[in-house]
Amino acid sequence: MFKRVLIANRGEIAIRIIRACRELGIEAVSVYSTADKDQLHVKLADYAICIGSAKSSDSYLNTDNIISAALSMNCDAIHPGYGFLSENADFVKIVEAYGMKFIGPSSEVISLMGDKAKARELMIKNNIPTVPGSDGVVNTIEEAVEICEKIGFPVLIKAAAGGGGRGMRRVFSMEDLSTEYTNAKTEAINCFGNGDMYIEKLVINPKHIEFQIIADSFGNTIHLGDRDCSIQRRNQKMIEEAPSVFLDDATREKMGLVAVKAAKACNYENAGTIEFVVDENKNFYFIEMNTRIQVEHPVTEMVTGVDLVKEQLRVASGLHLSKEQKDIKLDGYAIECRINAENPMENFSPSAGTVDFFYAPGGMNTRFDSFLYNGCPISPFYDSMIGKIIVKGSTRLEAIKKMRRAIEETFIEGINTNLGFQYTILFDKDFVRGNFNTGYLSDKMNCLLDRMRLVED
Amino acid sequence: MFKRVLIANRGEIAIRIIRACRELGIEAVSVYSTADKDQLHVKLADYAICIGSAKSSDSYLNTDNIISAALSMNCDAIHPGYGFLSENADFVKIVEAYGMKFIGPSSEVISLMGDKAKARELMIKNNIPTVPGSDGVVNTIEEAVEICEKIGFPVLIKAAAGGGGRGMRRVFSMEDLSTEYTNAKTEAINCFGNGDMYIEKLVINPKHIEFQIIADSFGNTIHLGDRDCSIQRRNQKMIEEAPSVFLDDATREKMGLVAVKAAKACNYENAGTIEFVVDENKNFYFIEMNTRIQVEHPVTEMVTGVDLVKEQLRVASGLHLSKEQKDIKLDGYAIECRINAENPMENFSPSAGTVDFFYAPGGMNTRFDSFLYNGCPISPFYDSMIGKIIVKGSTRLEAIKKMRRAIEETFIEGINTNLGFQYTILFDKDFVRGNFNTGYLSDKMNCLLDRMRLVED
Repeated sequence: MFKRVLIANRGEIAIRIIRACRELGIEAVSVYSTADKDQLHVKLADYAICIGSAKSSDSYLNTDNIISAALSMNCDAIHPGYGFLSENADFVKIVEAYGMKFIGPSSEVISLMGDKAKARELMIKNNIPTVPGSDGVVNTIEEAVEICEKIGFPVLIKAAAGGGGRGMRRVFSMEDLSTEYTNAKTEAINCFGNGDMYIEKLVINPKHIEFQIIADSFGNTIHLGDRDCSIQRRNQKMIEEAPSVFLDDATREKMGLVAVKAAKACNYENAGTIEFVVDENKNFYFIEMNTRIQVEHPVTEMVTGVDLVKEQLRVASGLHLSKEQKDIKLDGYAIECRINAENPMENFSPSAGTVDFFYAPGGMNTRFDSFLYNGCPISPFYDSMIGKIIVKGSTRLEAIKKMRRAIEETFIEGINTNLGFQYTILFDKDFVRGNFNTGYLSDKMNCLLDRMRLVED
Repeated sequence: MFKRVLIANRGEIAIRIIRACRELGIEAVSVYSTADKDQLHVKLADYAICIGSAKSSDSYLNTDNIISAALSMNCDAIHPGYGFLSENADFVKIVEAYGMKFIGPSSEVISLMGDKAKARELMIKNNIPTVPGSDGVVNTIEEAVEICEKIGFPVLIKAAAGGGGRGMRRVFSMEDLSTEYTNAKTEAINCFGNGDMYIEKLVINPKHIEFQIIADSFGNTIHLGDRDCSIQRRNQKMIEEAPSVFLDDATREKMGLVAVKAAKACNYENAGTIEFVVDENKNFYFIEMNTRIQVEHPVTEMVTGVDLVKEQLRVASGLHLSKEQKDIKLDGYAIECRINAENPMENFSPSAGTVDFFYAPGGMNTRFDSFLYNGCPISPFYDSMIGKIIVKGSTRLEAIKKMRRAIEETFIEGINTNLGFQYTILFDKDFVRGNFNTGYLSDKMNCLLDRMRLVED
């Protein structure tokens, strides 16, 4: 097992990793920007090193400084968390060149799965269902027309190098195709320096359901069940659950097998997520693989009992997976609400400041992963997520009621948060009945905001 | 299900009950003494009513005021928590006379099991192993001599109405018997107004192992496995675990059956605990039944997944148990450390004051049941326990390592606590190897204090 691990991240995920390290007897080294000197991940680590100024490109994305910090501290491995450098293949190569272990998959797999067109090709080659569309890059408008005639509208034009919705267009008829294709391509070139585009059938308002997988270096690959992450605002997940109430057992089992097959197809190692869209008829299609730990991993931990971050550290250090597929049983229903420093009343604009008073929710089957403490500064420089409340119940309704109770007892004063907005969703009939897809939040936004206003007034 | 429940308690157990109530859609009414007006159980409840001045006898033991509060708030039930009025049969009768439900067993059962001699007689009648001793009250010194000749020394002389070690004497030889018998009897008369004494074989430094049971009003009684509570200081538990590493599966199963039989023998309803002493050869003997929820109930919740307080509310309201015996599976190892406001360096003298800064431990399978918040006053009037850290691991060693990590990240500033003392135990080889009995803390106290001093200096 590693002796000392550098955590190339901040916020709640840095603390999550510190906890796993300490429980395994590994020393944890935090890095921080000058803006983050008073953050909890600095205080809780065994060592902490400043790696630059507030701007992410100067610190948390600054490969040179992070590598220097790791070398100067004699770290034998680096955990990237999520975001920042976690899916940067070049970073992985440098980490390895300096003789340290990157806690995640190889740089080749990150490159491959990071290229959405190549990932899709690989899946098609392995008979893994993908959304009908182009078999690779669409180079001309003529090719685009041909494909759309074949698969029918609506379609989604996507940049191969894309992310965050950029270089992406929904097209509903042939007459818009040419313009939208050109616009998306131009945007992709501007944003990513890569104009490779592909086209796929647009599944309207699908369920977003993903499978957690983990693999060791001996070729053992297992899945840890599904997560329903359909409650999203502008492609940002807000509430995640495990397991999805929408899936029946047969579909769940089939998808699990497919997820393991997908991971094996790219010789995947460490923790990863296979994301699917699922239509009303429970047809499921691979959309992408995330080659890192995810924000929503605790819901899987709650229902499987497997500590995913410890398992990442184990397999990265060359140990076998601690479980086989047959050992994985889903128990109960877990829900996670992401708590953001933002003002739902003002279009969810981020909120910064100091948390004057803080009280974390507690009790049975209630977990709060966060970097908050009393007096904690909330910086405007980084992601607005300040914590995640995760609960489990023996039924989904019990979990919902527990989450309501948990939010009721949570106090975060001094900044704006989305606690009230999340609380409102937990009372919405469609949410409670499991009647939602990725269109849920945009469809019901005004109604939810109105209800929240009524309660808070 | 009840509509509104009054919680006749304070501190962490009041908050534990508030959480269960809220999750079940029950309104929670807190009561508080004038000294407790700023306590968290007052802030988190739906309603809170002052019931008297700081002294317990004026408030938390003041039956009249508690009943008045419950009636004025139209409560349909009262949850007593532990301590205070929780095992007071007269209180139960009054609650029932006013048409409210007492969340616990009947007053008859509380009376019966509260009388140690009668409880023992009942167990003997039902072939439940008890420590060899007198078949009931020992009225004269002559009878005492006769029994001691039969069972051999050492023996324990106990007051039938006893508690907290009063009216109790260890006797190691015949020559001391007469004096000690007389002294114990006099003390019992002075303390409890009842000089009934009995005698039993003294099991030296046994394991203290107890079984959680719960029963509904339809005669269904199940047990939820065992807890090892051998780490005690002056009969006060400090660390509790579930399950005990000392028991083999066969003994565990046998003891579970006996625990259920003991509960059925007194027509028990609601949650209760059957306490045993277990000698080196795994012979086990019933010592007493606690007719209420216990401080250490969360370790059972961790390994069984059953919410005991919700289950108490369910069965008290006339519902069936939500589980059958076959549904109860023990998963993993849970440990609880009681956190007290006290100074181990000064003979564990209680500490009062204000908690200036507080950070609760978190993370996977880590629970902190407490009434602490930032700025929380710690009153000198009540029990020194301020919280309980509870963790679970897939092995006992994983749980121990998690508890170390949890204590490392816990900050309670402004008062003295036993966090450092508990932390020291977690590194003691005998503790880690499971090599301990009820004599552990007194045997190792000086050595543990020395080690703690070394670390803290």
